Amino acid sequence: MSFINETHDVALKSWVESANTGKSDFPIQNLPFAIFRRKGSAEAFRGGVAIGDQVVDLAAVATLFSGDAATAAKAASEPTLNHFMSLGQSFWSALRLALSKALREGASEKAAIEATLIAQEDVEYDLPCHIGDYTDFYTSIYHATAVGKLFRPDNPLLPNYKWVPIGYHGRSSSIGVSGQTFPRPKGQTKAPDAEAPSFGPCKRLDYELEVGIYLGKGNALGDSIALDDTDSHVFGFCLFNDWSARDLQAWEYQPLGPFLAKNFASTVSPWVVTNEALAPYRTTWLRDENDPQPMPYLESEKNREVGSYDIIMDVAIETAKMRAESAAPSVVSQSSFKHSYWTVAQMVAHHTVNGCNFQAGDMIGSGTQSGPLHEEAGSLLELTRGGKESITLNNGESRTFLEDGDKVIMRGWCEKAGFVRIGFGSVESTVLPAK
Amino acid sequence: MSFINETHDVALKSWVESANTGKSDFPIQNLPFAIFRRKGSAEAFRGGVAIGDQVVDLAAVATLFSGDAATAAKAASEPTLNHFMSLGQSFWSALRLALSKALREGASEKAAIEATLIAQEDVEYDLPCHIGDYTDFYTSIYHATAVGKLFRPDNPLLPNYKWVPIGYHGRSSSIGVSGQTFPRPKGQTKAPDAEAPSFGPCKRLDYELEVGIYLGKGNALGDSIALDDTDSHVFGFCLFNDWSARDLQAWEYQPLGPFLAKNFASTVSPWVVTNEALAPYRTTWLRDENDPQPMPYLESEKNREVGSYDIIMDVAIETAKMRAESAAPSVVSQSSFKHSYWTVAQMVAHHTVNGCNFQAGDMIGSGTQSGPLHEEAGSLLELTRGGKESITLNNGESRTFLEDGDKVIMRGWCEKAGFVRIGFGSVESTVLPAK
Repeated sequence: MSFINETHDVALKSWVESANTGKSDFPIQNLPFAIFRRKGSAEAFRGGVAIGDQVVDLAAVATLFSGDAATAAKAASEPTLNHFMSLGQSFWSALRLALSKALREGASEKAAIEATLIAQEDVEYDLPCHIGDYTDFYTSIYHATAVGKLFRPDNPLLPNYKWVPIGYHGRSSSIGVSGQTFPRPKGQTKAPDAEAPSFGPCKRLDYELEVGIYLGKGNALGDSIALDDTDSHVFGFCLFNDWSARDLQAWEYQPLGPFLAKNFASTVSPWVVTNEALAPYRTTWLRDENDPQPMPYLESEKNREVGSYDIIMDVAIETAKMRAESAAPSVVSQSSFKHSYWTVAQMVAHHTVNGCNFQAGDMIGSGTQSGPLHEEAGSLLELTRGGKESITLNNGESRTFLEDGDKVIMRGWCEKAGFVRIGFGSVESTVLPAK
Repeated sequence: MSFINETHDVALKSWVESANTGKSDFPIQNLPFAIFRRKGSAEAFRGGVAIGDQVVDLAAVATLFSGDAATAAKAASEPTLNHFMSLGQSFWSALRLALSKALREGASEKAAIEATLIAQEDVEYDLPCHIGDYTDFYTSIYHATAVGKLFRPDNPLLPNYKWVPIGYHGRSSSIGVSGQTFPRPKGQTKAPDAEAPSFGPCKRLDYELEVGIYLGKGNALGDSIALDDTDSHVFGFCLFNDWSARDLQAWEYQPLGPFLAKNFASTVSPWVVTNEALAPYRTTWLRDENDPQPMPYLESEKNREVGSYDIIMDVAIETAKMRAESAAPSVVSQSSFKHSYWTVAQMVAHHTVNGCNFQAGDMIGSGTQSGPLHEEAGSLLELTRGGKESITLNNGESRTFLEDGDKVIMRGWCEKAGFVRIGFGSVESTVLPAK
């Protein structure tokens, strides 16, 4: 089962030299989408595509294309990508192929496009789309087990975990794009030995390393998306930091789930890497042979063979002190989305099996992507074993949870023999003092 | 503390005679908003106001008003009420006063408006606004205790309940307006004595009797709305049926809360009764003196004095057999929003205390509004004691949970000595067979 086509060819080079270094996140094999404008300008936000260290302005180049690619480029020139996303797989692929051809060495469109390129360092981003609904899953069994141990020592992994792709609804309004800042949230907390709760700024502020998945084509209320049809609905992927206030969470989360512990802010990376670009990095869905077989609506040969995505991700913390001293951020963990217990296809099939409808631009969070090893944990809660063991950063500072002024930087990339490395850029966001 | 003004005057009569019967949900003291068009037409949906059995077409009458009322009427003529809602209290009040004056007996605007009235029986409705985010609270302590007994016999009311207004995020995409139909949801369930879960149509389909609260003016991310300032943010109220699949819920809800058990459909009434119209029915917030004092951000004299709303609501079931025989629906319970353990102001203050932002059109569900008596239960789960005791309908049929073809009808109204009764109309929705 292969989704590889000429746009993934390792031999392709772009006439944009910065795309050909082998180190850029954005070689011609990637071609991710974002919503951008010139930094500090009053220009309309519009769709762009990354190539090397440049942005292709889709509004400026749409007229170079024809047919479905032109329709797609025009839709992607709007202030959000929702319309483009809603067009569906054939339009997404047509534009990708047209861009791949136009950006290749020797392309006749070079002069026309080159004149309109804008350097990434000169742009600012908006959310890639209007996110109507956002759902967060819980697909890392390593995260679920580690967090379960802290919140429910006697009962870490609940009996439904290996049957149900556990998910819950999140807050859309507080999702921001990389660069987002937010005040440390305030709220109720209760120490285990306290008689009554107390109120104040969160003391256990944490990040969560996640993959965000954007739905393109939706489904009508009452219809379901079959497991093997999910690729025609999944538009693309981003990096996602699902900020979490652990002390608020512990006190509020029963019986209806996390609420104020999560909805004060969540941050996405500006660039959306398409499902098509990720084709080479799809991989076997690994499941312990002792685990229960999934129910039929969550089980297929295709899902077993190419259900997982090997997206490598890391997390770094940049403290205020590091910034003042121009020191490098300190990488605190690295993991991969391939460890996910449930696949993207299973999340989408499960979400709609009851008839719940997706709309273009809806986002799914994968849940914190912790790997099997302790150093692959996707949150400080896990890295510090519930705040009991501080971690030491590369400049000697230590952290149990985040402090005011800390910036959290997440990066993601894919690499595989026979293919060109592609990346996601980064999602960065800074904690401000409580108001 | 009074919010009563000339628009609430019991002596006011309208030149629309059907508004003056004393039995209409929509006397001149009410003036609720909806989005409507002529039934079966291709007209644009637009804002309207109910008066007796008629609709005032705001697009047709906006030019009759001046100043803030004209601005408000023009905004309310759009295909959603979001813009109007975002204008804020002074605009909402200006339009209400202008409509009250123009619809009174003897008003000079009578001829101009009368020519544009459309009978409610000739219109169809859309959602009143784009609901960006929807949050469901859990504010009936009677519901929380009854449901808690069924899901957690040893631990029905959790220790956080009397401190934290428990809420969780819901799904916006599947909210529909009265008249919505949906197929019985399918999903995983697990009988307590079963070794493994099974898959199939929900067997314990239920309604939830709720009040929906629309936010008008939002707040910026990072800011909080103070308890005593919430009235300037709350636009209005509707009836809300939060459909629930109890068997799916029992198996999936731990640890992150209800998900597929809720997101297959939720239904709102078309008419939004404004916070201002409800002023006469605001009442003392009742709390057991042995309960803990709320934290300062949830406590004020105003909230104690007028925090609650005495909105009476009932639920009726109309079976397919009743429809075939033109028999009246069977009312199965009646309750009031005044029993809510937490007030609207407390829900809004709590939701934003961590800096979470509201946007115009966001909706809050109150949670199932069960009263202290068994017959005041707001769900079948409670009325049938977890499905153990069936209820008998007025035509002799019985129910534990809902069957295919059942229509659930919820109504709401307010009455108080010295004021004219006002109503919400109804929210009606029918269960179709599983696909």
